[in-house]
Amino acid sequence: MKLKTAALVAGAALALAPLPLWAQTAEAPVNNAFIFNTLLFLIGGFLVFWMAAGFAMLEAGLVRSKNVAMQLTKNIVLFAIAAVMYWLVGYNLMYPGDGWTIPGLIGAFSTTSIKGDIAADASYAVGSDFFFQLMFCATTASIVSGTLAERIKLWPFLAFTVMLTGVFYPIGASWQWGGGWLSEAGFSDFAGSTLVHAAGGFAALTGALILGPRLGKFGKDGHVTAMPGNNLALATLGTFVLWLGWFGFNGASQLALGTEADANAVAIIFANTNMAAASGALGALALTQVIYRRIDLTMVLNGALAGLVAITAGPLDPTLFGALWIGATGGLIAVVVVPLLDRLRIDDVVGAIPVHLVAGFWGTMAVPFYTEGTSFGTQLLGFAAVGGFMIVASGLMWTFLKVTIGLRPSAEDEVLGLDKAELGIEAYGHSR
Amino acid sequence: MKLKTAALVAGAALALAPLPLWAQTAEAPVNNAFIFNTLLFLIGGFLVFWMAAGFAMLEAGLVRSKNVAMQLTKNIVLFAIAAVMYWLVGYNLMYPGDGWTIPGLIGAFSTTSIKGDIAADASYAVGSDFFFQLMFCATTASIVSGTLAERIKLWPFLAFTVMLTGVFYPIGASWQWGGGWLSEAGFSDFAGSTLVHAAGGFAALTGALILGPRLGKFGKDGHVTAMPGNNLALATLGTFVLWLGWFGFNGASQLALGTEADANAVAIIFANTNMAAASGALGALALTQVIYRRIDLTMVLNGALAGLVAITAGPLDPTLFGALWIGATGGLIAVVVVPLLDRLRIDDVVGAIPVHLVAGFWGTMAVPFYTEGTSFGTQLLGFAAVGGFMIVASGLMWTFLKVTIGLRPSAEDEVLGLDKAELGIEAYGHSR
Amino acid sequence: MKLKTAALVAGAALALAPLPLWAQTAEAPVNNAFIFNTLLFLIGGFLVFWMAAGFAMLEAGLVRSKNVAMQLTKNIVLFAIAAVMYWLVGYNLMYPGDGWTIPGLIGAFSTTSIKGDIAADASYAVGSDFFFQLMFCATTASIVSGTLAERIKLWPFLAFTVMLTGVFYPIGASWQWGGGWLSEAGFSDFAGSTLVHAAGGFAALTGALILGPRLGKFGKDGHVTAMPGNNLALATLGTFVLWLGWFGFNGASQLALGTEADANAVAIIFANTNMAAASGALGALALTQVIYRRIDLTMVLNGALAGLVAITAGPLDPTLFGALWIGATGGLIAVVVVPLLDRLRIDDVVGAIPVHLVAGFWGTMAVPFYTEGTSFGTQLLGFAAVGGFMIVASGLMWTFLKVTIGLRPSAEDEVLGLDKAELGIEAYGHSR
Repeated sequence: MKLKTAALVAGAALALAPLPLWAQTAEAPVNNAFIFNTLLFLIGGFLVFWMAAGFAMLEAGLVRSKNVAMQLTKNIVLFAIAAVMYWLVGYNLMYPGDGWTIPGLIGAFSTTSIKGDIAADASYAVGSDFFFQLMFCATTASIVSGTLAERIKLWPFLAFTVMLTGVFYPIGASWQWGGGWLSEAGFSDFAGSTLVHAAGGFAALTGALILGPRLGKFGKDGHVTAMPGNNLALATLGTFVLWLGWFGFNGASQLALGTEADANAVAIIFANTNMAAASGALGALALTQVIYRRIDLTMVLNGALAGLVAITAGPLDPTLFGALWIGATGGLIAVVVVPLLDRLRIDDVVGAIPVHLVAGFWGTMAVPFYTEGTSFGTQLLGFAAVGGFMIVASGLMWTFLKVTIGLRPSAEDEVLGLDKAELGIEAYGHSR
Repeated sequence: MKLKTAALVAGAALALAPLPLWAQTAEAPVNNAFIFNTLLFLIGGFLVFWMAAGFAMLEAGLVRSKNVAMQLTKNIVLFAIAAVMYWLVGYNLMYPGDGWTIPGLIGAFSTTSIKGDIAADASYAVGSDFFFQLMFCATTASIVSGTLAERIKLWPFLAFTVMLTGVFYPIGASWQWGGGWLSEAGFSDFAGSTLVHAAGGFAALTGALILGPRLGKFGKDGHVTAMPGNNLALATLGTFVLWLGWFGFNGASQLALGTEADANAVAIIFANTNMAAASGALGALALTQVIYRRIDLTMVLNGALAGLVAITAGPLDPTLFGALWIGATGGLIAVVVVPLLDRLRIDDVVGAIPVHLVAGFWGTMAVPFYTEGTSFGTQLLGFAAVGGFMIVASGLMWTFLKVTIGLRPSAEDEVLGLDKAELGIEAYGHSR
Repeated sequence: MKLKTAALVAGAALALAPLPLWAQTAEAPVNNAFIFNTLLFLIGGFLVFWMAAGFAMLEAGLVRSKNVAMQLTKNIVLFAIAAVMYWLVGYNLMYPGDGWTIPGLIGAFSTTSIKGDIAADASYAVGSDFFFQLMFCATTASIVSGTLAERIKLWPFLAFTVMLTGVFYPIGASWQWGGGWLSEAGFSDFAGSTLVHAAGGFAALTGALILGPRLGKFGKDGHVTAMPGNNLALATLGTFVLWLGWFGFNGASQLALGTEADANAVAIIFANTNMAAASGALGALALTQVIYRRIDLTMVLNGALAGLVAITAGPLDPTLFGALWIGATGGLIAVVVVPLLDRLRIDDVVGAIPVHLVAGFWGTMAVPFYTEGTSFGTQLLGFAAVGGFMIVASGLMWTFLKVTIGLRPSAEDEVLGLDKAELGIEAYGHSR
């Protein structure tokens, strides 16, 4: 419906009115809050969608060139799977309303409908909420693909994504955001340091343990072989994209923009989110200089991301200074945990476990410093519950896939690179 | 005007008011719908602008490295030409209001003015509508550049773009969106499966037929030489950018955000658009696995785009399941049509004809499944009319250019690559 | 707070109301203008944030491959520094309100607080303004990094960035946008052709003079060695990103969206900004064809950027035709000034001085053609004042850094490339 005359007719109705529209129709004035809230979800949603591209670029930049096309394929397909699975079962499993299958624990099993009349008490369009929440589901899956890059076959990864986005993530998130038992217990996780980032991190960690490291990564003598990424420009672009998308991730998690107080809250969240990212980058910069006597760009990138993850559990209540030290600590964590994983012989290609799981833990535990009514005990409980659930659920699924279709390509295929071996193409073609 | 005090003065006026602003000035309350509608156009407009970057990255990634700089040049310059031509003649040719040169068929020939008083019956800012509609005009030209890549000289391509963006696209679109004869006939094309995507696809197809294939593409024995793109990371980035921009493309084509119903409609469109892209990608993924026994990333990318094109004719009325199967069918079409074009010896470098023309046809014909008051016959009529017009107009222009300044570079230049031959530079420099 | 039930409670309150919300609570109706204005700052802010990524890509694409990782590092870290310094001192130095240290000349030295009650007379959220203005501060620093690329060590560059973003830029900008002496004098600079772009350009120029050119750039015989960029796809992507971000840069500088007039103004600014970019690209395209008989993509990119810089001083008042010729002139300037700098043996790696300083001068001087109450004399005064201040302040700081920690890497390090020499990594890894 792009016919201008149609729009003008609507305009004409306004113009002919001797009184403003709201004065004529006192029974049904326009509910501006409905529009503002919906707009917040849509803007937030497209910004978080953009994070899927950010993960794709970050991961494509950090793998070796022989696995770039595969990493790109995994990233775009995992998003597509999330979009379908979240509609098919995830959304109502996460937000069952009064329709819990097991109260507070397992939501409703049904597909999502976003059409139909607008409820009289609606404060936002259902479609905009579905659109926004779907993007969080996809983010969880993006985290997994980075850790397991370069050594997992396409189809088992996609099969895991089906379960993660359709079932595992929605169930964990329902405990808090769907009004389940964790929210009853007083847990606080504003935009998902635990529910999204640590959840994805736990799925990734479990996968890394079951899958094992890349061939040649860890020598028998304890030697760790560096396998630097093929394109740091792409990785930096990806980080900027994620940083941008995070304004929607945290900002629109306020869920409302219809009052001055809500608008003010969204503004504070934007500013705090930015501060935490910046201080995370600076924290990592300073610590790599102190420890290694040189700057490591990938550490700076992961520092910014760790700062973002850390502030995500509570981006509204801290002052800018609070956001600064919470984010900076996140950046320090990323730098410290990366070599620790190497020592544990856990191969995390892009550093997703330090950034999403460990900084997510930090962010979750930092909430009580600024948010009234929260406690370290309850925060720990929530983190442990979601983590335990994700480890068990992911562990079962990864093991099932391992013993059925198998997780890893053959050693020859892995050495050749998954692009040639599985896809039969190369990311950087050389045709004349 | 970034002086803070000025803004505070405005705020002070509000604050001093004993009654809310609308209550004091009953003659002229703020028309919030005007602001919401304008904001929708501006947000939609910058998202569709971003699609120009998406096409540039997609095409730069899919050509061979010797033609990357040329493809980038064409993409940024075609946008600039569209911006000027749409102002110079396109906008009023497309939206003549009461000033048709030939009623319902040819609009007004005049430049666009976006300044002046706001009409009392205005429901949006004219500048925002111009900004938004201009982006659609540019999209049409972006489609053509991809198909004809690697074998057309810069200047004839730009000359064609002048006519396409200034005259051909606006006339075709005026028939429907300007209130011309097609809209009178009952044709329905919400955001342009036919008017934008198929129109661009027809211009591209006509050009491909007149221009001929790249040297070496089709052997005498029927052999087709694969000429894979030089950088699939760029191509994937471009696809994500297009997917993001499409939320503006379809969502803001609702043209209004001033009521709960409009906000709800925009939300449904966002969700349906996303679903169609996702299912398009999955459809292409599945079919390539079945047919070729391997995944082709470029097919997955084109599948997502074909899903987006398919839902564009009617993104509001289908359910999420409707969007799923319409999009998935679009993805299947892309996979099937690519080898078909090869068999017809039509060289379409990026697959724009399957994605924009054929999936655009599918999307146009799918409208009656969900939209009341539409019919397959009228949909076919609209598609055929726009297609016929674009073939004739484009054909005349391509032929005119061929016999005057010539379309193709010399064979030596084409083999050398247009970057060195025409631009005298390389996209990937190797200076020390 | 993503618990759906919480949002529904708010919705329920609305639904139960027998009268619309504003009618019930006449003392405190929702101030929609507050929300619209805040939203404009947030959208504008995230778009300008995105420009930081645009500069990073543009510069990473235009340096030689041996310096890509360093250029990326500088770009992300400078943004992080700007975020912290603008909070620590910059914002209140720039917007002191009534708290000038020296009236009209030097603002207040204090950190920024964005929390606390919303003032009764507030017309926007303080946090949203801080977020938006911070991005302008970061832009200034991004300009410097491009000019001085490939031959300045990381730490002195970062030290300079601390002063530029914390002190130099905020003081210059306070003279106009903080209500200082230049705004009293009648200077007009809507979104910062002088205050942001020329200011950054002057800091860059001063640095380039003190730092000297890259080794091998200028021969003794006057020969200039071309050192083409390593990746024009990244450079083009960066230009598109900047173009997109500029809609926020200029559009949200209207500072208000709460009335039809403001919405209309923002729309005009979007359309004019786009036109100036387009005509800048076309102007550069045409002039390079005339002078050099071939198209230079980097000139087209810089032409678009120069058009954007040129319209920035006054994007609201010109007609579309005005924006066209102002932008086109900007594009011509970029083409003409680049070889001029070479003749002066000033090495500007990405062309930031022509684009930001010289086109910024042009844009500042073009304001009186369309904006009432401005004069060429006052515009010249403002440009000269800001330029003079930036030259002196930057010159002192560059000199201080030169005689203390030193600015340049050793000749061996510069030849080897800063990626290997300083960072110990490569942007384009080749690990197996």
